[in-house]
Amino acid sequence: MIKERIENLRQVMRREGIDVYLVPTNDFHGSEYVGDYFKCRKYITGFTGSAGTAVITLSEAKLWTDGRYFIQAAAELEGTGVELMRSAQPGVPTIKEYLAETMKKGQVLGFDGRCVSYEYAAELEAVLAKKGVSVAFNKDLIGEIWTDRPGLSKQPVQILDIRYCGQSRTEKLAKIRGMMKEKQADTYVISSLDDIAWLFNVRGNDVKCNPVVLAYATVTAERAVIYAQTEAFSDAVTKELLADGVEIKPYDEVYPDMQNTAPSHTVFADGTRVNYTLMKQLPKQVKVINERNLTLLPKAVKNATEIENERIAHIKDGVAVTRFMYWLKQNIGRITITELSAAAYLERLREQGEHYMGPSFEPIVAYGANAAMCHYSPTAESDTELRPESFVLFDTGGQYLEGTTDVTRTIALGPCTIEQKKQFTAVLKGHLNLAAATFLHGVRGYNLDYLARAALWEMGLDYNHGTGHGVGYYLNVHEEPNGFRWKCVPERFDSAVLEEGMITSNEPGFYLEGKYGIRTENLIVCVKDRETEYGQFLRFENLTMVPIDLDAIDLESMQQIDRDRLNAYHTQVFETISPYLNEEETRWLKEATRQI
Amino acid sequence: MIKERIENLRQVMRREGIDVYLVPTNDFHGSEYVGDYFKCRKYITGFTGSAGTAVITLSEAKLWTDGRYFIQAAAELEGTGVELMRSAQPGVPTIKEYLAETMKKGQVLGFDGRCVSYEYAAELEAVLAKKGVSVAFNKDLIGEIWTDRPGLSKQPVQILDIRYCGQSRTEKLAKIRGMMKEKQADTYVISSLDDIAWLFNVRGNDVKCNPVVLAYATVTAERAVIYAQTEAFSDAVTKELLADGVEIKPYDEVYPDMQNTAPSHTVFADGTRVNYTLMKQLPKQVKVINERNLTLLPKAVKNATEIENERIAHIKDGVAVTRFMYWLKQNIGRITITELSAAAYLERLREQGEHYMGPSFEPIVAYGANAAMCHYSPTAESDTELRPESFVLFDTGGQYLEGTTDVTRTIALGPCTIEQKKQFTAVLKGHLNLAAATFLHGVRGYNLDYLARAALWEMGLDYNHGTGHGVGYYLNVHEEPNGFRWKCVPERFDSAVLEEGMITSNEPGFYLEGKYGIRTENLIVCVKDRETEYGQFLRFENLTMVPIDLDAIDLESMQQIDRDRLNAYHTQVFETISPYLNEEETRWLKEATRQI
Repeated sequence: MIKERIENLRQVMRREGIDVYLVPTNDFHGSEYVGDYFKCRKYITGFTGSAGTAVITLSEAKLWTDGRYFIQAAAELEGTGVELMRSAQPGVPTIKEYLAETMKKGQVLGFDGRCVSYEYAAELEAVLAKKGVSVAFNKDLIGEIWTDRPGLSKQPVQILDIRYCGQSRTEKLAKIRGMMKEKQADTYVISSLDDIAWLFNVRGNDVKCNPVVLAYATVTAERAVIYAQTEAFSDAVTKELLADGVEIKPYDEVYPDMQNTAPSHTVFADGTRVNYTLMKQLPKQVKVINERNLTLLPKAVKNATEIENERIAHIKDGVAVTRFMYWLKQNIGRITITELSAAAYLERLREQGEHYMGPSFEPIVAYGANAAMCHYSPTAESDTELRPESFVLFDTGGQYLEGTTDVTRTIALGPCTIEQKKQFTAVLKGHLNLAAATFLHGVRGYNLDYLARAALWEMGLDYNHGTGHGVGYYLNVHEEPNGFRWKCVPERFDSAVLEEGMITSNEPGFYLEGKYGIRTENLIVCVKDRETEYGQFLRFENLTMVPIDLDAIDLESMQQIDRDRLNAYHTQVFETISPYLNEEETRWLKEATRQI
Repeated sequence: MIKERIENLRQVMRREGIDVYLVPTNDFHGSEYVGDYFKCRKYITGFTGSAGTAVITLSEAKLWTDGRYFIQAAAELEGTGVELMRSAQPGVPTIKEYLAETMKKGQVLGFDGRCVSYEYAAELEAVLAKKGVSVAFNKDLIGEIWTDRPGLSKQPVQILDIRYCGQSRTEKLAKIRGMMKEKQADTYVISSLDDIAWLFNVRGNDVKCNPVVLAYATVTAERAVIYAQTEAFSDAVTKELLADGVEIKPYDEVYPDMQNTAPSHTVFADGTRVNYTLMKQLPKQVKVINERNLTLLPKAVKNATEIENERIAHIKDGVAVTRFMYWLKQNIGRITITELSAAAYLERLREQGEHYMGPSFEPIVAYGANAAMCHYSPTAESDTELRPESFVLFDTGGQYLEGTTDVTRTIALGPCTIEQKKQFTAVLKGHLNLAAATFLHGVRGYNLDYLARAALWEMGLDYNHGTGHGVGYYLNVHEEPNGFRWKCVPERFDSAVLEEGMITSNEPGFYLEGKYGIRTENLIVCVKDRETEYGQFLRFENLTMVPIDLDAIDLESMQQIDRDRLNAYHTQVFETISPYLNEEETRWLKEATRQI
């Protein structure tokens, strides 16, 4: 079937004069998840993983993917004739290198420029131009051969009430227009969906786990336009937006409208987030300011209403997760529990919370060795039964009108070895240590990441991921520009100065391949501490209210300061969560949060 | 007198067709201190501070200097007609801004391009070119009017024996030539004096406190040439260098030799460290690779011999400083001690150490409020008597054949208030905390700086300087590229990955304006800890062996871990230093290093 699809593609390529066709995994907006409409790379290769790029020539077909997927991709590509390219392995070129090396003068690279970021494609075009290779970016060739292609998602758009978002869209637009004026920009083009949802106080359901609306938007001094599937907007929603001066236009009209930009205009766009085709519509004379989205910082810095709501969301979420832990501890070894059934049970508990809108990401419930794979998420094939031994790690989160949650706990389902306890405790000490930091304004994630790792590093251990990511407000669970990471990676945009109101995850871990995985994660919000002549000091407050499993702690490794920190947190968890529990659950939580 | 000098300068400016003349504070090599020959800015303005730049037009004269010198400069400039420009104050333009704003099309800016770095001058030239202003960089106009100008320093050059430097110059040259080959560079031009001294294993005395030789050097695959004042080289020294294939040529011949570079050559030079005139000699066709010096990292990463020697240097230095502290504690309130007399006494104690070559920087002995000024160094005018109250801070260091030292201690000369003790202890806790870090290879100073500040930040306090700088081996006390600083300042070049063998200072402090200053500084060397599957772990070892004043400690603020760290250090100090002390001193040190 794949072979046939590739042959069909090649026929169209020949007709269009295209020598090599590039198929990335992306929607038109650079979203973290892509909807069924956008699964072109899966369609043409058969590989079902979440990340990968296919390159089809008239004689060859290759798929690049990363280390998470080497085994799965090799299996799924078998017999398709598609060659697996293992990214970042010795001797494996990047796609850019491969194209630059193999394409010949006069050849044409085709791709759908709507599925590639402006910065990536512009760089690729420049590299290939030096070789005399041209690009044809206006080519959705998969669309031509994919006869039963699903439609675009167009879930109904909801207005997010001011009591949830805390700031009206007119205020937000005024702020953004002020920033545009400072930059001397006439038009601001946005295509990242969470930025659009934030700016206009709308939410939708067009991307899995991300409550966003498929849309583009443009803002000028006088006008604000959302380009979206108009059927998704009810009359009431359209009316409310229009009352604030926000027009709705059809999704695809953004392209001709870009062409009609006045040549004297200056357009502001975030080249890492807008697609290539969109930017190529602009008349050549238009001046482009390519900088990070103006919405980035105001979106990341949550306002007082949002933070108060986040506390409410985290109580509801904490109640669900605490009840889940109680259930797990009571029932392990008594009834059959698998990763998937546990995830389903937790989801049912979350659903009991008011204003629960669904998971904020694909839930991870990973038993034993499965948890040693950082990106594991159970499937029907991998689903493993939980037994009364070793650890189960669950990393799950919810979307509520009052905010987005993301919490990881690691639970001992049976007796732990002393080694396991020491590792669990080192992770916990790092987690507590980071949460306890007091720091001057100006500090970035890379200044503090060491706090989360020190206890592990003293034991010669480490974890191979960042310590934390920014989190949206009833939006994407992964949000720029804040984070914790010791190695500064500029292109990740997660090392911004920590500001009051930013929400970040705090999730150190430890993974023993083939054995088990440990991670403890809370969301923490940055708040003001005292201001002195030396400047404004800041600290963190825990949003997440879920007990940490005392059964897995090595008391001897806990210094007094560690104990004080854990005890204070557990006191707060009990006081916050217990009012919502029944008597039996309360009794259990009392014990689970006892002072040590 | 100054007015007359400026008028003389203007006459020459008119003759040469120069509208504005720039006089920086620099030698031809970007050294930290400038010799008397190079004090042109002082000559033309009368301002004696260590930093500042004069700009003389045909009608005006201005001096830019920084906050350390506002009061002194204002006093010294009085009546000279030179206007003080307070750098970085609101409304004060930078020199570049001032020149770009005020100079007119067709005008000429003159300066001695040997006293300005290539990068700075090239940028300035580009900015002015846009305005139609040209530069004349070959103009040492001060030299024309300064009739009694002192000569260049030409102290005898010494060979640094292999038992001190640990690696022969032929090995070093082979390494550098290997790096040149990788960069495809034919010629490597060096003009920073510590890099030259390191590469050729020579030392001199041409710059105050820096044991370096005024020289340029060039390295090609076949030749290595030192351009220096040949009279400074004895026959024996010349012979030894020649035996290793190193030629000595007259200092100024580097300029014509640069002109004779083959046009097909690629020249490697560190544009931040070579001067502008030197680079302008190169034929236009020559390709220039402008990157940081190839010597930077091998110089910073001390070899095993250097580190063993550093320990020896620090024992000798520790003995001197410990005896000084003993003397101070015994004699305060009994005999008259001033900042200068104390500094002189300490210098005499250091001089008793074998292979002591002199101070590694201008000694700071600062009593009471004087210590609140970070850059204070006592002069005959400011010299203050030490009384049996408050703190005295001394920050001093020595040059030994076995290495460079830099140590700060703050001594309570009388009873401390509880507030003083709490501040002293917070500084100490930060100092101990940083020294105790264990970390993975790849960590940079900005990942660890927080450790030194945490205790102060928890109290709402801070210090307004970096926590540490790299230190040379019997070379400059301030050395790139390692350091500790929480705000990443790329142009300081002090945030390199910490490597085994790097020596860095660890010097948190606290300053209360008008009252006192506290700082505790050791030099620490980065050493290997264990290597595990997660990577190579590193940690620090203290080189400095000097007691920390227990009289100033607030025991209540010291957690057990702080006490353990201080006790372990004090045990090491006693064991290392006491064998070199007399009975009375030993008794005192025993008490001064008692366990708490």
